Amino acid sequence: MKRKILGKGYPRLDALEKVTGAAQYTVDLKMPGLLYGMILRSPIAHARIKAIDISKAQALKGVHAVVTAKDVPLNIFSFYQWAADKTMLATDKVRYVGDEVAAVCAVDKDTAARAIELIEVEYETLPAVFDAEEAMSPDATLLHERESNVCFEVDRVVGDPDKAFAECDYVCEERYATDKVCHCCLEVSNCIAKWDQSGRLTVWTNTQAPHTQRQEVARILGISTKKVRFISSHMGGGFGSKLVLDMKTPIAAVLSKMTGRPVRIQNSRSEEFCTAKTRYGYTMYVKTGAKKDGRLWAREIKVIADCGAYQDKGPATLNFSNMMFAAHYNIPNVRYTGKLVYTNKQMGTAFRGFGNNQIAFACESQLDSLAAKMDMDPLEFRMKNANKPGEKMHSGAEIPTCGMSECMESAAKAVDWNQKRNQKGLRGIGVANSLHTAQGGRYYAYAATDSFIKIAEDGMITLITPAAEMGQGIHSAMAQIVGEELGIPPTEINVIGSDTDLTPYDLGSWGSRGTFVCGNAALAAAREAKKELIGIASEMLEVKSEFIKLEDGQAVAKAPGSPEVILPMAEIMDYTMNKRKAPISVRGQWADDMGPDWDVPKEWTKNVRSWAFGTQIAEVEVDEETGEVKVLKVIAAQESGITINQKMAEGQIEGSVVQGVGYALTEKQVLAEGKVVNDGFIDYKILSSEDIPEIETILVETGDPEGPFGAKGLGEAGLVPTAPAIANAIYNACGVRCYELPITREFILKSLKEKKAGK
Amino acid sequence: MKRKILGKGYPRLDALEKVTGAAQYTVDLKMPGLLYGMILRSPIAHARIKAIDISKAQALKGVHAVVTAKDVPLNIFSFYQWAADKTMLATDKVRYVGDEVAAVCAVDKDTAARAIELIEVEYETLPAVFDAEEAMSPDATLLHERESNVCFEVDRVVGDPDKAFAECDYVCEERYATDKVCHCCLEVSNCIAKWDQSGRLTVWTNTQAPHTQRQEVARILGISTKKVRFISSHMGGGFGSKLVLDMKTPIAAVLSKMTGRPVRIQNSRSEEFCTAKTRYGYTMYVKTGAKKDGRLWAREIKVIADCGAYQDKGPATLNFSNMMFAAHYNIPNVRYTGKLVYTNKQMGTAFRGFGNNQIAFACESQLDSLAAKMDMDPLEFRMKNANKPGEKMHSGAEIPTCGMSECMESAAKAVDWNQKRNQKGLRGIGVANSLHTAQGGRYYAYAATDSFIKIAEDGMITLITPAAEMGQGIHSAMAQIVGEELGIPPTEINVIGSDTDLTPYDLGSWGSRGTFVCGNAALAAAREAKKELIGIASEMLEVKSEFIKLEDGQAVAKAPGSPEVILPMAEIMDYTMNKRKAPISVRGQWADDMGPDWDVPKEWTKNVRSWAFGTQIAEVEVDEETGEVKVLKVIAAQESGITINQKMAEGQIEGSVVQGVGYALTEKQVLAEGKVVNDGFIDYKILSSEDIPEIETILVETGDPEGPFGAKGLGEAGLVPTAPAIANAIYNACGVRCYELPITREFILKSLKEKKAGK
Repeated sequence: MKRKILGKGYPRLDALEKVTGAAQYTVDLKMPGLLYGMILRSPIAHARIKAIDISKAQALKGVHAVVTAKDVPLNIFSFYQWAADKTMLATDKVRYVGDEVAAVCAVDKDTAARAIELIEVEYETLPAVFDAEEAMSPDATLLHERESNVCFEVDRVVGDPDKAFAECDYVCEERYATDKVCHCCLEVSNCIAKWDQSGRLTVWTNTQAPHTQRQEVARILGISTKKVRFISSHMGGGFGSKLVLDMKTPIAAVLSKMTGRPVRIQNSRSEEFCTAKTRYGYTMYVKTGAKKDGRLWAREIKVIADCGAYQDKGPATLNFSNMMFAAHYNIPNVRYTGKLVYTNKQMGTAFRGFGNNQIAFACESQLDSLAAKMDMDPLEFRMKNANKPGEKMHSGAEIPTCGMSECMESAAKAVDWNQKRNQKGLRGIGVANSLHTAQGGRYYAYAATDSFIKIAEDGMITLITPAAEMGQGIHSAMAQIVGEELGIPPTEINVIGSDTDLTPYDLGSWGSRGTFVCGNAALAAAREAKKELIGIASEMLEVKSEFIKLEDGQAVAKAPGSPEVILPMAEIMDYTMNKRKAPISVRGQWADDMGPDWDVPKEWTKNVRSWAFGTQIAEVEVDEETGEVKVLKVIAAQESGITINQKMAEGQIEGSVVQGVGYALTEKQVLAEGKVVNDGFIDYKILSSEDIPEIETILVETGDPEGPFGAKGLGEAGLVPTAPAIANAIYNACGVRCYELPITREFILKSLKEKKAGK
Repeated sequence: MKRKILGKGYPRLDALEKVTGAAQYTVDLKMPGLLYGMILRSPIAHARIKAIDISKAQALKGVHAVVTAKDVPLNIFSFYQWAADKTMLATDKVRYVGDEVAAVCAVDKDTAARAIELIEVEYETLPAVFDAEEAMSPDATLLHERESNVCFEVDRVVGDPDKAFAECDYVCEERYATDKVCHCCLEVSNCIAKWDQSGRLTVWTNTQAPHTQRQEVARILGISTKKVRFISSHMGGGFGSKLVLDMKTPIAAVLSKMTGRPVRIQNSRSEEFCTAKTRYGYTMYVKTGAKKDGRLWAREIKVIADCGAYQDKGPATLNFSNMMFAAHYNIPNVRYTGKLVYTNKQMGTAFRGFGNNQIAFACESQLDSLAAKMDMDPLEFRMKNANKPGEKMHSGAEIPTCGMSECMESAAKAVDWNQKRNQKGLRGIGVANSLHTAQGGRYYAYAATDSFIKIAEDGMITLITPAAEMGQGIHSAMAQIVGEELGIPPTEINVIGSDTDLTPYDLGSWGSRGTFVCGNAALAAAREAKKELIGIASEMLEVKSEFIKLEDGQAVAKAPGSPEVILPMAEIMDYTMNKRKAPISVRGQWADDMGPDWDVPKEWTKNVRSWAFGTQIAEVEVDEETGEVKVLKVIAAQESGITINQKMAEGQIEGSVVQGVGYALTEKQVLAEGKVVNDGFIDYKILSSEDIPEIETILVETGDPEGPFGAKGLGEAGLVPTAPAIANAIYNACGVRCYELPITREFILKSLKEKKAGK
């Protein structure tokens, strides 16, 4: 297909606003009568609440309301099919340092802070458990009233793994572990809730999923969803942290209802680190076996996931790991055992990659261990086992297009694999592959969405889309999709969204689904609009529709035997407005035809209809003196299906790689008695601009039979293989196998020392 | 049709917000960095501008910008087919006291006001003309560079009026006149313009027609319409004054562009009276003839309309008078001559009734004069000539439904006509009929509109409609129409509008068109939604769609031979969301099939497809000592087609009658040398609550073949017959025929005196 608009690196629609500082984020919002809300959080990791005295706080001048669990609805926070365990404020117990105990609202922040200090809580400290494996022990303290801290389990088997391992010529068995890391959004989580006199609650907040958060807040408050409206604006990052509702929103709502005024609650940066949730930490016992011809034959993984104090997205994450670890290569015999375990820590939640990063680290590291055992080149080993387009995995995944080999080949070519694998000194390269959903998937409710397009009298195209803009540029991508179909640059397209009253229902921006799902809906609407525009042009020019196309902001008619005639869009709309009978307003829909039995997929991975492969090759240098690992370069080859916007696609990959390097080397929450001690950017190390390695992005355009114009989502995939690629590069550089993330200097130094000592 | 939702007096959707004061009007809007703009207006009725010195104003601290005609685009303010004569700021001349000369913006209102005082303008005063008939004289001063002050003319003839008058047994020839009156909106005209860094202009303003004002402002500024967005909020009245763009909006836009900040310009109450435009004053020479059997046989009217300094809606108003005066009754021979004449006064514009009120006063008064001559009861005379349903007028109007006789009968019955016509003392009753468009009409662009409906996961219905809410309750009416179709109370329907970026194109709220045009579009969308909902219910219940209806928030299925099954909407949506594949989002369209040759209707009135008749009977008492006319009661029988909302429909009629009584008796702009001297509510008398007569509203439900559920628009019609009904009642009470509006005490006293003296 000859593309006119797609693929080009148009600046984002919000670029100017953002670089000039004019863009308004939710934190910038002002409102008459706004009160400042604040949450009193538990200072103890595990305790019984004996008594709360709010009288002094209530008596403070400027305080408008003080609430404890007695004053708020205590509906359980449950979302779709997953079990639920959280109320808005703690009732009898607190379960982590940061648990919501009480809340206030006052005329300003200082008064709210003083009021928080004046609330007196009597706690009875309980034994706490901070390690997931310890928490599984029968005599561990129990966080919730249930028989065990294991709150969710998954077991799946394909083939006969035990028999298969016996048949293998090479088997590798290792333990890998990853830690909790933070999303580190530059805009902290915040909201304003306003409960108006008509009984309707409006929430302004930075959220990735306005429609589902609307449902969640209604459920917690015990009111009809109809009574709730969510509005978001520009967002300073989400990365998964703004997918599931945070309790500050229903708390602000209750405070607003009590006071009749809008109430803002905004995380401090410390709260952002201590309570805004993390990526789940995994302990993984992995075993992979291959035949001597190099075929992968069996894999088994046991995951123990550190849930934190409440489930949140834990079950879904564990399930997603289950879906992904085995679809990675076509391995005939696999077993997955997952346990999600409560600990007295901050909960986990969704995080870019969603359960894939942890298992990719383990499985892709182990592939290299196995390759080493087999004395095979790890790239060649992967090539041998690579998926091919049209293949149906043993895991159940149907993979219509697959750029796996192409990704590996292009990345290897870019780095000169054979030369770089054999460098002198402590330099080396490593490869890792990734597989990720390129369109979310059908996990709950409908993986479908609608869009509206209306064309104004001057040819201005307005797209009303539920695509949630969180800074990733989804609105710009939508404009480019519509622009391609209508032959108009995206700058001429006005994108409206971010308000549940305005936009059709959609599940939100997560799972790399926006471009695929909302993009397909936008494209469907654009197709309808195109039909109408061409029909009008046909009427005007007296040329059959089939001979008319839209491009460069005009209709171009070329009937056989006649000269080409050109009609500017403005003229078409002028005619529409002044001569024809009606404006152009259309609806487009993309609907998943998965059928009604979606709720627990009977077959692994069958609820995902588009997959994206990627290969990363990292080059590192290890400092023998300090243990420092310097990442020199990352080559990221990633299937984009087709590229919607070159710059934005590269930006997604680059951002992912940067987060991946942090995940591999620098990021880690440090806790003391359950309290996060590194609760700021001074002590929690994310990569700054000068730490970022050279990144070379290769977009592999395999096309997707169902994506808009063939596009796949790529918001997450780039983060998945970075850590194992670095770990494998370290092994190549110095022979040290890294089993835990982050890979610390201490570990490297110690390992090099042990290696030297011949251990 | 059995109606469940329609007709009922549901409270308006915005009622609670409004009565509690929570509703935010444009005047309430705050914005960071907002500057205060103000306009320097001419203090002289007609003058040449010799020089303007803005240097002192520019030097004042706190002033951000000062502009004159040199600094702004001078594109002519033209709208569709009518001639144009106005620029944003005066260039060489000023033409009325209030003409825009320069503008400033400053940090606050006081600074802006001081800056205005510091602008020095040197004027050369020119002769001014304040009377339309004088302005037509060949030696009158000319306002614009054209041969005459007559700026628009209409001449139409049907039949052979001269011959017909010769055939008449009775002919009556009189001169009537009406004065300029003000709209008196409680919220003054105001706007904020913000020209952002992307080059896009957003205007927040109280407007009846966001989409067409958007086009107008783009035209004046010489920019693409795409670059402009109009947002309105709650409005404190329009009545026609907020249909055509006021120059404050482009001026604020220019100031915003210059300063990079949002700029507010808001009329003072004095500006509202002196510059926010008026109803056109008409001088009318009317001649009506009848045969002795009582048949109306010929009518001729010459209208001289006082335009004021610029045309604005003058040509359209004159044309509409032309359309309406002859469609009133079926008179075979008619002639209309209209002249629109410039004077050095504030311009006229649209005003509820739009050229119909003036001619109704003249023609309906004259019918009584003629009846008196013929010694016929004026009601009987009207009955004899009443239109009948399905008739085609000589004027060209096709009137599918007509409640004229029914209106007269029901009003006469309510008042006990024969008894009341013969009261002792100076008490009397009078009747007048009205005919008005019930759906606007196709005058420019498309009389068509679209709507979107989306149904949320909980059954919440959201309607996205371009219907412009100006306080008349149109959004509530839309909710009731959608509610009727979907079997859901309007309180469960969320109406979104008031933003040109969000809503499809529509011409706005004027010409009583909203209910008909936007209502039909909303109904079309509701029908689509209903189809989907019933389809889903059919799938769930395994009952054929034809046996399912929607009512009381549920689907009711009754297949022959099976028991009735009920399915709540929430369950349907739960199924839709959790089991079916896609959300429900639909588009509805109502399109006028008038065809492309709309621009100047070849046949009178053919561009209006729905008509509403009305009859009012006024009862008055005249005070012989003071000349005071006290209106005791007004009975208003009005065709509603079918009633959408009983309370709102009655409210429209009552509000119209109150405005009509003011028009008849108390309202008048008083000028001295062209300057309005009664520029506040102290001196300009509108009716207050204690002046309002008893009003009895009778809604006549004739149905309309094309209106939504048969509804007709009735926003204006109630104002049209009030003044002539009062004039005719005065004649019945004391034998004085009133030829001018307002009917003053002085005139009544003088006339009674002359009558006594036997003149």
